Amino acid sequence: MTQQNVLGKVYLVGAGPGDPELLTLRAHRLLCSCDALVYDALVPAQLLALPGEACNRVYVGKRRGHHSVPQPSTNQVLTELATTHRCIVRLKGGDPFLFGRGGEEAAHLDDLGIPVEVVPGVTSGIAAPAYIGLPITHRLAASSVTFVTGHEEVDKQRPKVDWRALARATDTLVIYMGIHHIRGIVAELMAGGQDPLTPVAVIQQGATALQKSLIGTLAGLPGMVEGEGIQAPAIVVIGAVVDERVPACAPALPDAEIPLPMTAADLALSRAQQTALLPH
Amino acid sequence: MTQQNVLGKVYLVGAGPGDPELLTLRAHRLLCSCDALVYDALVPAQLLALPGEACNRVYVGKRRGHHSVPQPSTNQVLTELATTHRCIVRLKGGDPFLFGRGGEEAAHLDDLGIPVEVVPGVTSGIAAPAYIGLPITHRLAASSVTFVTGHEEVDKQRPKVDWRALARATDTLVIYMGIHHIRGIVAELMAGGQDPLTPVAVIQQGATALQKSLIGTLAGLPGMVEGEGIQAPAIVVIGAVVDERVPACAPALPDAEIPLPMTAADLALSRAQQTALLPH
Repeated sequence: MTQQNVLGKVYLVGAGPGDPELLTLRAHRLLCSCDALVYDALVPAQLLALPGEACNRVYVGKRRGHHSVPQPSTNQVLTELATTHRCIVRLKGGDPFLFGRGGEEAAHLDDLGIPVEVVPGVTSGIAAPAYIGLPITHRLAASSVTFVTGHEEVDKQRPKVDWRALARATDTLVIYMGIHHIRGIVAELMAGGQDPLTPVAVIQQGATALQKSLIGTLAGLPGMVEGEGIQAPAIVVIGAVVDERVPACAPALPDAEIPLPMTAADLALSRAQQTALLPH
Repeated sequence: MTQQNVLGKVYLVGAGPGDPELLTLRAHRLLCSCDALVYDALVPAQLLALPGEACNRVYVGKRRGHHSVPQPSTNQVLTELATTHRCIVRLKGGDPFLFGRGGEEAAHLDDLGIPVEVVPGVTSGIAAPAYIGLPITHRLAASSVTFVTGHEEVDKQRPKVDWRALARATDTLVIYMGIHHIRGIVAELMAGGQDPLTPVAVIQQGATALQKSLIGTLAGLPGMVEGEGIQAPAIVVIGAVVDERVPACAPALPDAEIPLPMTAADLALSRAQQTALLPH
């Protein structure tokens, strides 16, 4: 690829946690004006209706029975679109730089001389707790909060998480993608000295119509997750802040679902079915 | 106060980190329709122009030579406004539940039977690094990121931070309000075993027109902060992710300044001076 071939700019845009109204003004403006949109399953369908009819929509999420589209392929999609489109939005659930691989996509595009810009978003590790009235750093209960991936074993390139050290070091722990490994994670935290009675919250599909939440204790967490059939995507919060919840302040749940259906066919929603997100 | 006296609802709204375009759609809608607005210094002036002329604007931030308005007083302001106004926006820099005391305000209002709702926002601990192209959890460099206040000694009610334990437990450390105590914090982190050569970034007034950033090493951080005269508000990032920066992907800086001027007189900006944030 040469500089001459580059036509457009790629925006790495945070879609927020699920509620379409938590989109930022900049993300909204870019979605309304882009001519290519690259998205995965962790964004609400409403946002896909924002670009015009002529926008080239490209799905790079999981397909039924397969893993997600590998990162080199997503990079390739973005690279090719940059030669044929002017404004390419790479839409990502939450924030693009918090467990979103936005950093890798930015580096790849920049290495090729393709203009790229990040647009921060509201991360689900903050918003999902808020949607059950849970302040993750209440002053009486926390001076620190750690966001950590529970999925690092799947991704061998990531640094290993020292759960035993985290048990002692941080006041609040917010675990992304931790449901599949919750039994091992809890065992490590308790081996690290965390009180088995530490309050915990699990929020499945937070800030969406299908939000489901459970409150319990650290020791009871694995049984609770398994017993209630909690599935990804879900956020786990561990710490004394769980007891500082003010459920009355949680926003009403939006008419939005995440994740999106898994196949391209499922995704062929008519535009009429999609609720347009009206500007104000 | 009795239930009968309550007229309105209080929204605890995140204003985002500084760039007015990082406001959420919901925050924008509420600001455009509120009849009372309670704000402090850590929000951009543009947002104060969004409500109509008739909106009752109340400043509860720092005044020259004084500390910020004490929390009981802010609670009292919100309580009184709820008896005389219908839609009260309590606007807070960043996110209301991440070092924002939103949890306390929500609990206070709920205890009095006043309807209250939280509106999450983009936190400066994510956005300020993004505005220098820094992904706080790049996959090759971090599986965890800890947001911590460096100000906890001022606030005796907060749990004490164990910096030595954090040094070993988390991959990325993002310190809010840490500038005044940076020498002691760095000494504790190194005493806890953190490599003196760990890369660090300091972002002063991130995502605003006056953004200034420095890159260095942990051991050199206190000298750098003092030598360059770095002032609050500033975010400090410590960890290998600092070396994964893609400066080219940083957004252009907005025409917005934070903090606001400190006196009520300074704040008497004419509406003509304020750049209206146009809905898209």
